[in-house]
Amino acid sequence: MKEVIAVVRMNMMNKTKAALSEAGVDAFFAHEAQGRGKGFVNASLLQGAESGYEEAAEVLGEKGKLYPKRMVTVVVADDLVADVVEAIVEVNQTGKPGDGKIFVLPVGDAVRVRTAETGAKAIA
Amino acid sequence: MKEVIAVVRMNMMNKTKAALSEAGVDAFFAHEAQGRGKGFVNASLLQGAESGYEEAAEVLGEKGKLYPKRMVTVVVADDLVADVVEAIVEVNQTGKPGDGKIFVLPVGDAVRVRTAETGAKAIA
Amino acid sequence: MKEVIAVVRMNMMNKTKAALSEAGVDAFFAHEAQGRGKGFVNASLLQGAESGYEEAAEVLGEKGKLYPKRMVTVVVADDLVADVVEAIVEVNQTGKPGDGKIFVLPVGDAVRVRTAETGAKAIA
Repeated sequence: MKEVIAVVRMNMMNKTKAALSEAGVDAFFAHEAQGRGKGFVNASLLQGAESGYEEAAEVLGEKGKLYPKRMVTVVVADDLVADVVEAIVEVNQTGKPGDGKIFVLPVGDAVRVRTAETGAKAIA
Repeated sequence: MKEVIAVVRMNMMNKTKAALSEAGVDAFFAHEAQGRGKGFVNASLLQGAESGYEEAAEVLGEKGKLYPKRMVTVVVADDLVADVVEAIVEVNQTGKPGDGKIFVLPVGDAVRVRTAETGAKAIA
Repeated sequence: MKEVIAVVRMNMMNKTKAALSEAGVDAFFAHEAQGRGKGFVNASLLQGAESGYEEAAEVLGEKGKLYPKRMVTVVVADDLVADVVEAIVEVNQTGKPGDGKIFVLPVGDAVRVRTAETGAKAIA
């Protein structure tokens, strides 16, 4: 059982939801986040912030170096992970910076609260 | 050490907080999320979205197929996991769809920032 | 590969961002959360809530026992974890309750959506 976390563009949520359903995933959750990838950093600002210049640290924050993103989380059986990742990549890949990241984490157990089912049954 | 993530109904937060305290958990964090379980999907809309119909994908999103939820996260020692899961299930189980899910993930280490304590001490 | 989750004070985000960059981390995401550490609980309120007094449970919620926090997430190679944790602790440690917590979770894989690169390349 794995947790697949995808950080995607805000405007890609609907396509991502549809792609997940197509990949056999009917249950997931999502929330807003701010994110930054490589290559968005103004080095001199950073250097200023590192040297303790409060103003540089603030500009770094205020200038919106963090971009609004959606974080989508699904928990699926191991044999679904490859399909889920492929589905997310397919609809989110524009080739431009900011397409997002996907992380796969191990999950020890899952519980469906309504029935108290655990393990594979909880996410089936 | 385990991370227990519970996705519960918005109006169950206070009861969930009290149940966690009763189970011996004094430290946790929470945030808003949108979620969807099985059984909420309109198949024809999905089919439309999968076929590339932008309108279907949009309706799928706009119609609120994702419901507002609270995501509660606690990190506890292994021997507390069963109690924590039971406590969350007990107060959140109504028997109706939407009761939520609980996931248990392995945690390698924890640090209390104030003291720089690590491991079991950081979450004691 | 590890996920480092830090729950820090709202007003420490800029310093935390700068510290992460200094530690060699250019990609991360963040979101708002509410959190509570040990020592913030009014025992009699809790007891009331546990005994089923709805009012006590509500006050427990309304009185703001959960404080607004920022949750920062980075995924880094194993050999960067110690530096990242140290960097976060250094800028967030005031010695007062509420400095926050850091959790380190194992990550199985990462994918850069733009290029479909996986593993170490996806987070390099």
